[in-house]
Amino acid sequence: MTSSPSPLAPEAFPVLPAIAGVRLATGQCGIRTPDRTDLMMAVVTPGTTVAGVFTRSLTASAPVAWCRRALKGGRATAVVVNSGNSNAFTGRQGELTVAATVDSVATTLGCAPTEVFIASTGVIGQPLAPELITDRLPSVVANLAADAWPAAAQAIMTTDTFAKAATRTAVIGDTTVRLNGIAKGSGMIAPDMATMLAFIFTDAAIEAPVLQRLLSEANDRSFNGITVDGDTSTSDSVLLFATGQAGNKPVAKITAKRLEDFRRALNEVMLDLAHQIVRDGEGASKFVTITVTGAEGHKAARRVAFAIANSPLVKTAIAGEDANWGRIVMAVGKAGERADRDRLQIFIGGVQVTANGGVVPGYDETPVTAHMKGQNIDIRVDLGLGRGEATVWTCDLTHGYIDINGSYRS
Amino acid sequence: MTSSPSPLAPEAFPVLPAIAGVRLATGQCGIRTPDRTDLMMAVVTPGTTVAGVFTRSLTASAPVAWCRRALKGGRATAVVVNSGNSNAFTGRQGELTVAATVDSVATTLGCAPTEVFIASTGVIGQPLAPELITDRLPSVVANLAADAWPAAAQAIMTTDTFAKAATRTAVIGDTTVRLNGIAKGSGMIAPDMATMLAFIFTDAAIEAPVLQRLLSEANDRSFNGITVDGDTSTSDSVLLFATGQAGNKPVAKITAKRLEDFRRALNEVMLDLAHQIVRDGEGASKFVTITVTGAEGHKAARRVAFAIANSPLVKTAIAGEDANWGRIVMAVGKAGERADRDRLQIFIGGVQVTANGGVVPGYDETPVTAHMKGQNIDIRVDLGLGRGEATVWTCDLTHGYIDINGSYRS
Repeated sequence: MTSSPSPLAPEAFPVLPAIAGVRLATGQCGIRTPDRTDLMMAVVTPGTTVAGVFTRSLTASAPVAWCRRALKGGRATAVVVNSGNSNAFTGRQGELTVAATVDSVATTLGCAPTEVFIASTGVIGQPLAPELITDRLPSVVANLAADAWPAAAQAIMTTDTFAKAATRTAVIGDTTVRLNGIAKGSGMIAPDMATMLAFIFTDAAIEAPVLQRLLSEANDRSFNGITVDGDTSTSDSVLLFATGQAGNKPVAKITAKRLEDFRRALNEVMLDLAHQIVRDGEGASKFVTITVTGAEGHKAARRVAFAIANSPLVKTAIAGEDANWGRIVMAVGKAGERADRDRLQIFIGGVQVTANGGVVPGYDETPVTAHMKGQNIDIRVDLGLGRGEATVWTCDLTHGYIDINGSYRS
Repeated sequence: MTSSPSPLAPEAFPVLPAIAGVRLATGQCGIRTPDRTDLMMAVVTPGTTVAGVFTRSLTASAPVAWCRRALKGGRATAVVVNSGNSNAFTGRQGELTVAATVDSVATTLGCAPTEVFIASTGVIGQPLAPELITDRLPSVVANLAADAWPAAAQAIMTTDTFAKAATRTAVIGDTTVRLNGIAKGSGMIAPDMATMLAFIFTDAAIEAPVLQRLLSEANDRSFNGITVDGDTSTSDSVLLFATGQAGNKPVAKITAKRLEDFRRALNEVMLDLAHQIVRDGEGASKFVTITVTGAEGHKAARRVAFAIANSPLVKTAIAGEDANWGRIVMAVGKAGERADRDRLQIFIGGVQVTANGGVVPGYDETPVTAHMKGQNIDIRVDLGLGRGEATVWTCDLTHGYIDINGSYRS
């Protein structure tokens, strides 16, 4: 929790503007350790629309179960996030903790319980007493402010080595709107989203069903394309809040032409946050982009890309700066999708390595080895079978990962 | 290749008896390094029946492709195995190397080419000149002996830290038969068999189709139940040779009652070899048995068991001797099979940890922590849904794995 920042961390935390209709505050609840800021609360204007995507884990946490229910209303007033305890696999008691927290927040703010969203991250399987959070609510609410973004991003961290945020602007019609996002996550990251939380806020006016479609689409191209260790958490949640305070005419159709620029900006914010999570992958020393083209379809391309991205042998070779393309061949072979040895083309750092079922004639490893020494590794695989494409992002597997996960009980 | 033996290695190499009709020899071909014994050849009596199972990788090596074809004849005279180069992803050249080796062996021994089996293990994607092997054949053949088992087991090693063998006897009717097996494998080990080779020899008389059924069944309960890193090799092969020299009346039906004891012995030899491979898992410090019961079916139980066995977070927790059952819950949740939080029961070292969707009341971690400090870790998960069961075996994930795979190009 207090390790030095990942070597792949961005140079600085971005400057986030205020988002009309959003106020944030943080607090110390002593959930896991006494002196840590472990609570983040955001309160949004009444009428704010909300969308969410969650872990596909079948042992999802109590907060995730609650958010799925609350989301049906499509409206939000607050989101309360604690770190230090994920309230996952805590049985009936876990549900009671969520209910008590929701009730307390709803009473304090004078809103419906279904407008209160909860997210928890940290240790699995330990009871979380709701009073730890609810006792702090009055003081937290008293401190709500429009500029508390850095503190908010800090408060939701667990094994993260740096706070994660991104911001963009977009134009809807002739109105400029803003988007801010914060996220946490560094291990247990996999296709189905893993121990990651992200909260995105915009002052755009977008109706809830449209917001949900936008979020799901952007999620497929960002958070669902990253993997650190192939593990999937019980708590992953991404929530998107639209306060409508920018004043654009509310968007009610996903096909609306004026939504294009907002879609771009949302994709960018989420991809930026997703990449930051990979850059904070436990023990990561390299940021790896894996692109698969020429697959029979998009799903096939994704499966092959993830087979490469999750292979411990590929990831350790990258850590060792070894251009070991044989392990890429191995990973393609085990993915379970159609592959043809003689059509398979592998490129590392833009240099073609294989063709016609073997290494390219006169293959010179010098530029490839130089590429492997950099921080950003590009692997491209063309299967030569169809038009399916996918890109996923991962990091290498190093001693740091073992150090972190062989000791910390998360 | 010369690291100290795994802490989980058996105390000694077993004493293997001669098997009537089997002679072995080894040689130095300089395939990867000059002074290493890198060739193993076994010659079996004419009429020997043969069965085989191979990697499911879609980028399987040239030797695997050849063996699949040759196996249709059901008869064997020789198997030639080299370490140091897997002749995988070597294109048309790789096929020519296999053909040249097979022809040379067949000519030397005076048998049909389809009675010659080839296996190669080592680096992927580098051309293998057949002369390296064929030039050595005369001297290797001249040295064939019935007692060369230890040298044979040594010759097929790559990153293995100890040679692997197992032996059993069985009774067919009133004839005692013998089974000897040797194997190699330590990394890139996964459900579909991975970089592992195993060769099993018996003097029993069993017709080829029956032998094939016996081998496939035993393989499902042994080699297909082990995982080190979830990676699957392009070269895995298990071959079973039956010389018929023991003199039992040849077994022609898989349902024959007199086959029962042989089936037991074959299962034991293969499970013994499979466990030795896990015990030599790259960097392994713990041998882990994962049993899943109460699943909706056997396949579901296997998927859940492998989700636990392949989870880097579970494996690093075991390396850290941390009874982190929350990560087991996570792995069950991500397996994609039906799971019900409130029915899930987790046992570590025989101690029940969870019930009714949470930790058991009054859970005392002391005995579980003591269990985690041992070399043999037992994890049992009951899903409480049906009667499906499966057991798989794996090892922990340690710094040693990173050391080995971040440098050695295998």
